[in-house]
Amino acid sequence: MSRKIGVIGIGHVGSTVAHYLVSGGFVDELVLIDKNKAKVVADALDLKEALPNLPYHPKIVVNDYDALKDADVIISSLGNTRVLSSKTSDRFAELPFVSAQVKLVAPKIKASGFNGVIVDISNPCDVITSMYQKLTGLPKNQVMGTGTLLDSARMKRTVGEALHVASSSVSGYNLGEHGNSQFTAWSTVVVLSHPISELVDKYHLDLDQLDQNAKNGGFTIFKGKGYTNYGVATAAVRLANVVMNDANTELPVSNYRKEYGVYLSYPAVIGKQGIVHQDQLNLSDDEKKKLQKSANFIKSKFEQVMNK
Amino acid sequence: MSRKIGVIGIGHVGSTVAHYLVSGGFVDELVLIDKNKAKVVADALDLKEALPNLPYHPKIVVNDYDALKDADVIISSLGNTRVLSSKTSDRFAELPFVSAQVKLVAPKIKASGFNGVIVDISNPCDVITSMYQKLTGLPKNQVMGTGTLLDSARMKRTVGEALHVASSSVSGYNLGEHGNSQFTAWSTVVVLSHPISELVDKYHLDLDQLDQNAKNGGFTIFKGKGYTNYGVATAAVRLANVVMNDANTELPVSNYRKEYGVYLSYPAVIGKQGIVHQDQLNLSDDEKKKLQKSANFIKSKFEQVMNK
Amino acid sequence: MSRKIGVIGIGHVGSTVAHYLVSGGFVDELVLIDKNKAKVVADALDLKEALPNLPYHPKIVVNDYDALKDADVIISSLGNTRVLSSKTSDRFAELPFVSAQVKLVAPKIKASGFNGVIVDISNPCDVITSMYQKLTGLPKNQVMGTGTLLDSARMKRTVGEALHVASSSVSGYNLGEHGNSQFTAWSTVVVLSHPISELVDKYHLDLDQLDQNAKNGGFTIFKGKGYTNYGVATAAVRLANVVMNDANTELPVSNYRKEYGVYLSYPAVIGKQGIVHQDQLNLSDDEKKKLQKSANFIKSKFEQVMNK
Amino acid sequence: MSRKIGVIGIGHVGSTVAHYLVSGGFVDELVLIDKNKAKVVADALDLKEALPNLPYHPKIVVNDYDALKDADVIISSLGNTRVLSSKTSDRFAELPFVSAQVKLVAPKIKASGFNGVIVDISNPCDVITSMYQKLTGLPKNQVMGTGTLLDSARMKRTVGEALHVASSSVSGYNLGEHGNSQFTAWSTVVVLSHPISELVDKYHLDLDQLDQNAKNGGFTIFKGKGYTNYGVATAAVRLANVVMNDANTELPVSNYRKEYGVYLSYPAVIGKQGIVHQDQLNLSDDEKKKLQKSANFIKSKFEQVMNK
Repeated sequence: MSRKIGVIGIGHVGSTVAHYLVSGGFVDELVLIDKNKAKVVADALDLKEALPNLPYHPKIVVNDYDALKDADVIISSLGNTRVLSSKTSDRFAELPFVSAQVKLVAPKIKASGFNGVIVDISNPCDVITSMYQKLTGLPKNQVMGTGTLLDSARMKRTVGEALHVASSSVSGYNLGEHGNSQFTAWSTVVVLSHPISELVDKYHLDLDQLDQNAKNGGFTIFKGKGYTNYGVATAAVRLANVVMNDANTELPVSNYRKEYGVYLSYPAVIGKQGIVHQDQLNLSDDEKKKLQKSANFIKSKFEQVMNK
Repeated sequence: MSRKIGVIGIGHVGSTVAHYLVSGGFVDELVLIDKNKAKVVADALDLKEALPNLPYHPKIVVNDYDALKDADVIISSLGNTRVLSSKTSDRFAELPFVSAQVKLVAPKIKASGFNGVIVDISNPCDVITSMYQKLTGLPKNQVMGTGTLLDSARMKRTVGEALHVASSSVSGYNLGEHGNSQFTAWSTVVVLSHPISELVDKYHLDLDQLDQNAKNGGFTIFKGKGYTNYGVATAAVRLANVVMNDANTELPVSNYRKEYGVYLSYPAVIGKQGIVHQDQLNLSDDEKKKLQKSANFIKSKFEQVMNK
Repeated sequence: MSRKIGVIGIGHVGSTVAHYLVSGGFVDELVLIDKNKAKVVADALDLKEALPNLPYHPKIVVNDYDALKDADVIISSLGNTRVLSSKTSDRFAELPFVSAQVKLVAPKIKASGFNGVIVDISNPCDVITSMYQKLTGLPKNQVMGTGTLLDSARMKRTVGEALHVASSSVSGYNLGEHGNSQFTAWSTVVVLSHPISELVDKYHLDLDQLDQNAKNGGFTIFKGKGYTNYGVATAAVRLANVVMNDANTELPVSNYRKEYGVYLSYPAVIGKQGIVHQDQLNLSDDEKKKLQKSANFIKSKFEQVMNK
Repeated sequence: MSRKIGVIGIGHVGSTVAHYLVSGGFVDELVLIDKNKAKVVADALDLKEALPNLPYHPKIVVNDYDALKDADVIISSLGNTRVLSSKTSDRFAELPFVSAQVKLVAPKIKASGFNGVIVDISNPCDVITSMYQKLTGLPKNQVMGTGTLLDSARMKRTVGEALHVASSSVSGYNLGEHGNSQFTAWSTVVVLSHPISELVDKYHLDLDQLDQNAKNGGFTIFKGKGYTNYGVATAAVRLANVVMNDANTELPVSNYRKEYGVYLSYPAVIGKQGIVHQDQLNLSDDEKKKLQKSANFIKSKFEQVMNK
């Protein structure tokens, strides 16, 4: 059957997701949704004008919620980075705008009969992912957020650069909120065939500094262009591909963890049904504390926004 | 050897080109150049944060003209669409800004020792492509513009939609200036195994209307988002790939035609050395006139800008 | 939904098809079927050992006809090239073996409930394609053969080499039986922006010789290795992708032509439902005669085999 | 610059490597070499007949050692599996044939002026890789063998199947000789975010059995079709891509380890210059013993073959 994906919110991130899906040949039918009709029509047309120079020919449909009924994946890239650029890069500045949007969008997804997997990019990621699950009524395993798949990529970039290896040759996870309380679980990071803790002396590594570099990366991008799109779009499309391929790949994403009672980022095995397996990490006491703190923060924000 | 590409001008189009090159695995070393340092650093970093979720690991270098010395291709995506969005979509509104930039950039390309192929996207495409050739001193075959590869794609889209076939199953060319004087050479268009003129009655086609639809497509995109990027970036990357692959593929691009004494779009065979073969079309008298008119227009604009 | 493909007959061609589908990331679930269980299990295992070094993770299932129920495409690569290598390269030498196999296989496809598109590679292609349609009872549009998509590729190779252009820059069709009676419809061939007839003098082309070169190519491959696989597997996978992508691409394939009352190769538009549009070429009288002769030959062979 | 690869030995493995390079768009110029001229010409032609249905157009050259001068990578797939199929699957049965071939081939590579990276698939892999280095005089870092990159893939397959995760989500290494003395270094295997030793009880894993399954996989393939090609070709092409992309990816390959004085498989970081970094694993005493034993075996075989 055709691979069908919906993208909701066609701003900087959503349009990049759409282009990557089309240019990579990852989709057979693409549904683009945005309340700014002129913008979404423009992006759809622009993508159609790419097709004669590509070896694929996906269908591209605009603003049709009904078409989501048999989609495999919906990627949410709702956002309003203007809120951020004016004052702050705290992702919670986007919460009022995005949560209001999700309250409008989620019921329409539900009404379409959609029964695939939602991959949320919209920030604050964990809270918005929770909202999507709650408001669509989809099983928790069918809703996830890109979460710290991006933060983990940032960590891998800095570790890779420090040790002159490809960032894809670094393994390990950032955990918790996709926001200021996320952290690198250094106990999980392996590179050059060693737990990174064993390499600190030999290669004069400063883990705190690496952590800071990873975080600064995000700020540098944000300050330089007012938004971030390539890293996070790549993460989201990877997740969509893993779902459609039913690959059972393990990745850190925002998923519902019962012991914390919230969505937060933690590695999980991902397949056709979304989250198909969850395991328990051997975290250090310090890492456990950080994660609990991150969970508490997400929980309080989620309650606030749902009670409004 | 590594495939090395420089992209000069990292705005909407240049960053899309860069992302497509990286996400498609089309490049081993990428040199990004822009006078807005914060922006180009941000895009480079954002792309690096995509790499841990990709199966490729290109090097990404920023603002280093020396690194262009052994590049295979330079893609110019200099532009200033703000000029356009305020008043008009006439590509010549960009000329003062872009030509001034090219006068700064081209000597630096020359000084780097670059001896590959320039693919110009910057508008007005034919004039700017001419400028690059003149100011870098590269042989004419090593400089080309995306030109009507995009307009041809627009024509293919509308013809394909009218006849319910993939736009890539439509062949034929738009010719002349990548601007208001370009036109579809309907005598070259073949679809459903027939010259399109033979299908007009059977399928109730209105060629003038199709032409208009193709042109309107560009305006709709421009009005909807203030710039166009996906179609033209796809065209430019296709050209870069054809050059690096030494594929000898025939495509309509802006290339120097001796009989007109200017760069304008006309099909040519493209390989490692850029334009490796030029042929003569059997155009109708009307098409010849249109092309001559388009050539005259480009010529006058080029002389104006070089004499400043 | 997942892209699911069955491949029946895992010899030289079938295993190449399977490997190309897996290595290209074109399939999410692959069903391999062969009566030589040791061989098909070996190929499936070998492909699974490729997956850790690939960015995709398709499921691979062996000898399960029930799994074909919801497949998008079945590619038939049944064959017995040993029959050929001993005496002759006439594809009809394979007919007794392959037709006997199809009589066993087609009812099992039917029993599975399969309702997708069959792409037949097995030779003699047009007769076997007809048999699949008849014996599965699928609508004619849902059954096609690779036919002269391969012969057209051979023609494009020789024309491209003669004119120093990429073979993908040559358009045109070989028509009729995928066998000794097929022919290049030179009236359809366009290259360097011209009908090839216009280039004969300028480039000293001998069309008969080009035709012969194309045919000799097949013999050279067959003599050199006892079978041909890469060209035809690429053709078959392209068709499968066009179907799954619902691309509406026009290609010459073996499809049922009412006016001839048989399957033979002729360009058609291909999408999700298989053959979605058929057009009429403007053939020369000589080409029409050749095609009629080819049709008559296929018809007589098909009747022979079905009456046995 | 163009990506140029030579493949020497166009049997089951070499032709699969060539097809994968062409179909994946991984090469711009491909040099195929085999002493069976009819076979290599047949494969080259078959690949050229694939090109009109592919979006790439590499050059394909046959039996031209001079063309290797500026190649980036040479993949050696010399072999004679008929020796194996008649009696045994011990890779050393191939040694007399393959070592004699390498003594003919390596001086021709040297004479061509080749200064890229050799990736050896030919078996017995570690001995043949050593021979290539010795006889070409290339620096040790520029010569490697696919070695246990394949055995590690086999281990990942069995572990992945046991735990229902993608084999690419399993990390860890098989070490030593690519032959009967290779072994899984279980201390390096991580899956589901845990060292595999921690999961043995929870998931009822029998590591010895998994090891046996991985080894049996190879035998099953060999018995079922008389050779193995897809897994090992994928490993070799991955290495070629990592080299051409200068990716600095860490992978287990046959590389020269000073402390053992031989080529054997051990993880290393691979880039443009071949082996660009070597690290030391924290192996258990038992693993160290196995590795020493494996090294001794390779050493004795290498000395035998070079002294002949």
